[in-house]
Amino acid sequence: MKVGIIGGSGYTGGELLRLLANHPNAEIVAVTSRKFKGKSIGVVHPHLSAISDLSFEDLPTSEVAKRSDVVFTAVPHKAAMGYVPDLLAQNVKVVDLSADYRLAPAIYESTYETTHTDQARKATYGLPELHRAEIKRSDLVANPGCFPTGAILAAAPLVKAAKAERIVFDSKTGISGAGMMPSDVTHYPNVAENVAPYEVTTHRHLPEIKQELALLGKCKIHFTPHIIPSVRGILTTAHIFVKETLTSEDALELYEDMYASEPFMRILETMPSLSAVRGSNFCDIGCFDVEGDRVVVISAIDNMVKGASGQAIQNMNLMFGLGEKSGLWAPGMAP
Amino acid sequence: MKVGIIGGSGYTGGELLRLLANHPNAEIVAVTSRKFKGKSIGVVHPHLSAISDLSFEDLPTSEVAKRSDVVFTAVPHKAAMGYVPDLLAQNVKVVDLSADYRLAPAIYESTYETTHTDQARKATYGLPELHRAEIKRSDLVANPGCFPTGAILAAAPLVKAAKAERIVFDSKTGISGAGMMPSDVTHYPNVAENVAPYEVTTHRHLPEIKQELALLGKCKIHFTPHIIPSVRGILTTAHIFVKETLTSEDALELYEDMYASEPFMRILETMPSLSAVRGSNFCDIGCFDVEGDRVVVISAIDNMVKGASGQAIQNMNLMFGLGEKSGLWAPGMAP
Amino acid sequence: MKVGIIGGSGYTGGELLRLLANHPNAEIVAVTSRKFKGKSIGVVHPHLSAISDLSFEDLPTSEVAKRSDVVFTAVPHKAAMGYVPDLLAQNVKVVDLSADYRLAPAIYESTYETTHTDQARKATYGLPELHRAEIKRSDLVANPGCFPTGAILAAAPLVKAAKAERIVFDSKTGISGAGMMPSDVTHYPNVAENVAPYEVTTHRHLPEIKQELALLGKCKIHFTPHIIPSVRGILTTAHIFVKETLTSEDALELYEDMYASEPFMRILETMPSLSAVRGSNFCDIGCFDVEGDRVVVISAIDNMVKGASGQAIQNMNLMFGLGEKSGLWAPGMAP
Amino acid sequence: MKVGIIGGSGYTGGELLRLLANHPNAEIVAVTSRKFKGKSIGVVHPHLSAISDLSFEDLPTSEVAKRSDVVFTAVPHKAAMGYVPDLLAQNVKVVDLSADYRLAPAIYESTYETTHTDQARKATYGLPELHRAEIKRSDLVANPGCFPTGAILAAAPLVKAAKAERIVFDSKTGISGAGMMPSDVTHYPNVAENVAPYEVTTHRHLPEIKQELALLGKCKIHFTPHIIPSVRGILTTAHIFVKETLTSEDALELYEDMYASEPFMRILETMPSLSAVRGSNFCDIGCFDVEGDRVVVISAIDNMVKGASGQAIQNMNLMFGLGEKSGLWAPGMAP
Repeated sequence: MKVGIIGGSGYTGGELLRLLANHPNAEIVAVTSRKFKGKSIGVVHPHLSAISDLSFEDLPTSEVAKRSDVVFTAVPHKAAMGYVPDLLAQNVKVVDLSADYRLAPAIYESTYETTHTDQARKATYGLPELHRAEIKRSDLVANPGCFPTGAILAAAPLVKAAKAERIVFDSKTGISGAGMMPSDVTHYPNVAENVAPYEVTTHRHLPEIKQELALLGKCKIHFTPHIIPSVRGILTTAHIFVKETLTSEDALELYEDMYASEPFMRILETMPSLSAVRGSNFCDIGCFDVEGDRVVVISAIDNMVKGASGQAIQNMNLMFGLGEKSGLWAPGMAP
Repeated sequence: MKVGIIGGSGYTGGELLRLLANHPNAEIVAVTSRKFKGKSIGVVHPHLSAISDLSFEDLPTSEVAKRSDVVFTAVPHKAAMGYVPDLLAQNVKVVDLSADYRLAPAIYESTYETTHTDQARKATYGLPELHRAEIKRSDLVANPGCFPTGAILAAAPLVKAAKAERIVFDSKTGISGAGMMPSDVTHYPNVAENVAPYEVTTHRHLPEIKQELALLGKCKIHFTPHIIPSVRGILTTAHIFVKETLTSEDALELYEDMYASEPFMRILETMPSLSAVRGSNFCDIGCFDVEGDRVVVISAIDNMVKGASGQAIQNMNLMFGLGEKSGLWAPGMAP
Repeated sequence: MKVGIIGGSGYTGGELLRLLANHPNAEIVAVTSRKFKGKSIGVVHPHLSAISDLSFEDLPTSEVAKRSDVVFTAVPHKAAMGYVPDLLAQNVKVVDLSADYRLAPAIYESTYETTHTDQARKATYGLPELHRAEIKRSDLVANPGCFPTGAILAAAPLVKAAKAERIVFDSKTGISGAGMMPSDVTHYPNVAENVAPYEVTTHRHLPEIKQELALLGKCKIHFTPHIIPSVRGILTTAHIFVKETLTSEDALELYEDMYASEPFMRILETMPSLSAVRGSNFCDIGCFDVEGDRVVVISAIDNMVKGASGQAIQNMNLMFGLGEKSGLWAPGMAP
Repeated sequence: MKVGIIGGSGYTGGELLRLLANHPNAEIVAVTSRKFKGKSIGVVHPHLSAISDLSFEDLPTSEVAKRSDVVFTAVPHKAAMGYVPDLLAQNVKVVDLSADYRLAPAIYESTYETTHTDQARKATYGLPELHRAEIKRSDLVANPGCFPTGAILAAAPLVKAAKAERIVFDSKTGISGAGMMPSDVTHYPNVAENVAPYEVTTHRHLPEIKQELALLGKCKIHFTPHIIPSVRGILTTAHIFVKETLTSEDALELYEDMYASEPFMRILETMPSLSAVRGSNFCDIGCFDVEGDRVVVISAIDNMVKGASGQAIQNMNLMFGLGEKSGLWAPGMAP
C-alpha cells in the first residue's frame, strides 16, 4: 500500500515515519515539508538515519494524491481542511491527525475560533474501540486528540453502563504534545522539576471528550491537563463519581467486558505507567479503587503513538482491511 | 535560643539544618543520629560542609532536653511518641515533624495501624494560617503533613465561606517526600519520564485533610497523590465543587481576605509552579478558573520547607515570640 | 530458532524479551527467574503485557539447554561461568551478557577480584565490527560491556590507522546500567539534576577497552565514566591525541572507510545524541573536530541495546547465519 | 550600599535579586528592563513575589549611576561595553557579568568576532581566589565566565606548582547557562534524557581559561562542554596530565594549601556533586584519583551563583571592604 504524509517534519510526522518503517504493507511514497524540502529525512530526524533513504519534498496535493493509496495529514488544525477535500476528490483515503474533522462543525468553530471551510464533509472519529465498524467503511478518519484518547477509554465502560454521574479527568502529559517549536512552555528550566496546569477549564480537547462520551451515556464531564517533566506519555486520573456505589470488582468487570477483544487495550493488575506504554500503541488501564461514590480509573498512553501516529496507523489498517495490529505490535520501551 | 534536633540525618533533618544555618536566633546544640554518630554533618550532608562544624551524636533524650530550649523530632511516626513525653517532662518545647500528634488518637490508630502510647497529650496542629494563636501558647506542636499543608490552604477560604460541597484534591509531589532510603518507588528509572499515582483513595494524609477542613465547614473530601519526576515540591489541583456558582473574582476575594496578612501565603496573578516556591517557605495560590459548579484552585509548596522543616521553624518562631519570618524570609530558587 | 534466557527478570533480560518479540526467527522457549518463578512476564515487565504470554520458570540448566538452540545468559558476572560449561556441553550456542568471558583469565581475575573457574574455555569477544568472522564460527560469544562498545567504536579507526597516541574516554551514561536494584546510586534525588563521576580511574571496563584497542594498535588509554540524569544511553566523548595532526576530513574518511559496510554504524552529519539511538541497535558516530593534536570523536549508543541485549541478538544472528539486521532493524525513538 | 542592576529580567539578573534579597548591606535602588518596564519584579520572577516590591524601570545609564554606589551590568556581551564607560565616569563601581572586560582586547575581538569599543579600560578579572588584592582596589571587575570559574579552580594548584603538562577539561553544564530565551538547544525534548556536546573545541570560554592559567604556569589546555539534563550547575572533570607522577595525597595537599583560607572553596572527602552546591556560592573540589600520569580533579559549582551572580556579589563585597561572605553564606540546597 502506498502511503503519503503531508507534513513530515514535525513530531507526529516523524512518529509516522518511525512506525511505518516496520509496517509490512506500507511503502512511503511521499513526505512533504516546505521548510526541509530536499533534505534527507535522516538529517531532520537523525533517529531515522540509515532506516529511511527518503527526502522531504514540497509537492502539490494532487501529486501526493496521485502517488498514494492513503495520505496522513500531519499538519496543524486549520491547515488540514485545506488539503483534505482535494485528496478525497482524487479517491485517496485520508487519516487526518489534526482537529479539523473531529467535532461537529459548530462546536469546532467555537472551540478553535475559526471558520470551518468543509462543513458538509462526513468523517469518522477514529477511536477504533468505539467506532471500528464505521472506520472500516470510511474514506476520511479524524484521528482523535491525545487527551481524548486516554480520557474516553478510561471512562467509556462506566459511562456506557450508565453508572457514571460526573467525571473529573485530571491528566498529566509529557511535553512532546506541545510540538517541535521551542517556546516558554517547552523551555527546559520551565518544565524540569515542575508541573504546569494549563487551560484548566477550557482546553480544546474538552468538547471532544464530551462529544464522544455523550454517545455512550449522560454524564457531567470535567477536564484539567498538566504538563509534567516527561517527553512522552499521558497518564489520566479519572475521578468517576457514580450514581450508586459499586465495588472495584464490579468496575473491573465492566472494563474487561468492554475491552475483552481489543488488541491495544490492556487491563493491568499493576498501576499503569508511562514507561509500560512508551513507544507503543497500547492504552493501559488500571486501579479501580473505590471510595464512597468515587471510582478512580487510571489510563496511560503514549501521546505520540496511541494518542496520535500509532492510532492513525491502526485506523489505516482498519480502512484497508489489514490486520489491525499490523506494524504496531511492539511492546512499550521500559525502562 | 538553643535548638536540638532528634533525627538529623534524613531529609527533614538536613533541611532543618539548612534553614537554621541562617536563623538569627537559633543555635543548634545537639543533632542526633545513631547511624552516623561521630560523623561530621558535612560528610553526611555535603551541602552543609563548611557551613556547619557540628557532628552527629547518639544522645539520651534527657541530654538533648538539657541542652535545648526547643527540640525538633524529625523521626518516623511511631518513633516520635517515644521521645516527646520525656522532652516535655524536662520543660522543653517540641515541634514534632512526624504524624504522631496530628490526629485524634482513635483516627491515628486506625490510620497508622498502631497503638498510640501518649493519647492524653494535647498538641496543636501547626498550621499557622489556621491555628496561630494556639501555636503561640503551645509546648507541643504537631507539624502538618506535606500534602495536608498544600491541600488545606488551597481550599480553606471556600470551605470556611460555606461555598464548597465536594473537593477532589489531585496532588503531584516530588519524590523527596519518600525519604532518603532507596526503594523501587525512588529508583530513578521508575520515576523519570513517568508519573505514579499511589494510595489513590487511602493515603494517610486524607484523615488529616478531613480533620482540619471539618473545623472550617462541612464538605466532602477526596484526595489522590501522584509522584512526578521532581525532587521537591507539591502542586495540588483542587477541583472544588460549589453549592452555588460563583465567579473567579468572588473566589479570589475570599482567598485575598483570608490570607491578607499571612506572611507566607502568596496569591499569584500567574499560575503557581514548583520553581517559584523551591527552597522557600511560601505557599503560592492561584488559578481560580470557574466552569459551571467547579472552581479550580492551584497551590504550590516546597514539601521540604512549608511542607515540613520550614513550617516547623515557623512554628518555633511563633512558640517563642520571635518574628514569624525569622530565618525563613528567603525567595524561592528559580530557575 | 529456539531461544532460552537464563535470568530474564532484570533489565537486560527484559530488553532481550522486548527485542526478540519481533524477531522473525526466534521463538522463546524458556525464561528463568528464581525470584519470579511462576509469574507471568507481563506482571514483572508490564511493558511486555499482552505481547508475551510466557511465565518465568526456575529450571535446571540442562532443561534450558534441552529446549534451546541458543541461550542468553543474562546473569551477573561470576554467576555466568556457572552456567556456560553445562550449556555448551549440551551443544547449545551461548551468548553471555556478563563479563565472565570477555577478558583474558588473569586480567579477569584481578579486575573482578575472583577466581575464574572456566579458564580454558575459548570465547569470542562479540563486537561484530571487529570480530565478525570469528563470531560466525563461535559457540560462545562474550557480549561486550556497554562502555567498551561505545568507546572502542569511537576510536578504532584512528587506532587502527596508527594515528592515535593517547585517548581520554570521558563517558556519560544513563542510570539503567546500574540495574534494577534500588541503591543510593539510583535514588532519584541523587541522580536528577546532577552528574556523578565514579570509578574515575578504576572502572572494570577499562581493561576491556584496552584489550580490544591493543589488537588494533598501540595507544595510551584513559577512561572515566559519569552517570547523568537519563535512563538509557551512553555518550562517549573521545579526546584522541594524535601523533601527527590531521584534518577533520582525514579523520572522517578513516571512519567512513572502516564502517562503510557496517549495518549498525551511522556516521552522522549532526552531533550524536542519546535520543537518536534510544531503543535501537545503532552506534552513532560524529563530530571529528580537531584542535591541534586533539581530535574529538563522539559516539552514542543505547546501553541496553547496542550496549547489551541488541548486540547479543546481533551476535546470535551471526552465529546462526541469519541476516545480521534480523529483528534489530528499528529506528531510535525520538523525541 | 546602594545597588543598581542593568538588565534585571534575565536569569543572572533574577539571581542577583534573589541573592541580594538577604544581603545585610545592599539596598537595590534600580533594576532596569526595557521589555518589562513598569512591571513588578514578582510578576516577571514569581519566586521573588512578596520578597521584593520593586518594579523594572527603563532608565538612562546616568540615572542608574546617580542612584547607585555599585552597578551590576547583567546584559549580553557587546552590550555591556556600551554602559560601563558612562557608569565609571560617574564614579560608580561596576561588576560586569558579561564577557566584555575579561580578555585582552585582541583576544576578545577574535573570540567574540566584534570590535571592542573600550580597549584602553583596565578591568580586574574577578576570580577572588586568584586576584583578591586587585579586586579590592578595582572600580571595574570583569566577572568570570561560568566554565572558567569551575575549570580554573579545578586546576590552579597543579598548574601553579608546575606539575601539569596538559589538561583536558570535560565539563557538564545545566541548561540555565543558555539563558531565558527558548531555542532548539533549550527545548525540553532535546535536553531531557540526553547529553549534548557543543562547541567541542571552540567554546568562547577556552581563551579565558587559557589566559588565567597562563598566569600561574605553562600548560596545554583543552576544553569541551556538554549540556546535561539539569537546570543549574557545572561539574568539570579535569583530566590533568602531569610531568612527573605524584600521589593523590600530594595532589590533595597542593589544593588544601592553596585554598586553605578561601571561604568558598570546599575540598570534599566525598565526590563533588551539583546538589551540594546548588543555589550556593561554593566551589567544591574533590577526587584526586591518580592513574599513571593522569590526575583527575572534579569541581562543582552552581553556574548561576559562583559561576555568575554570587561571584559578582563576592566581588562587590571585596570592592567595598565588606565581609567577603556577606549575603552569600548559605548552604547548597540538597536534595
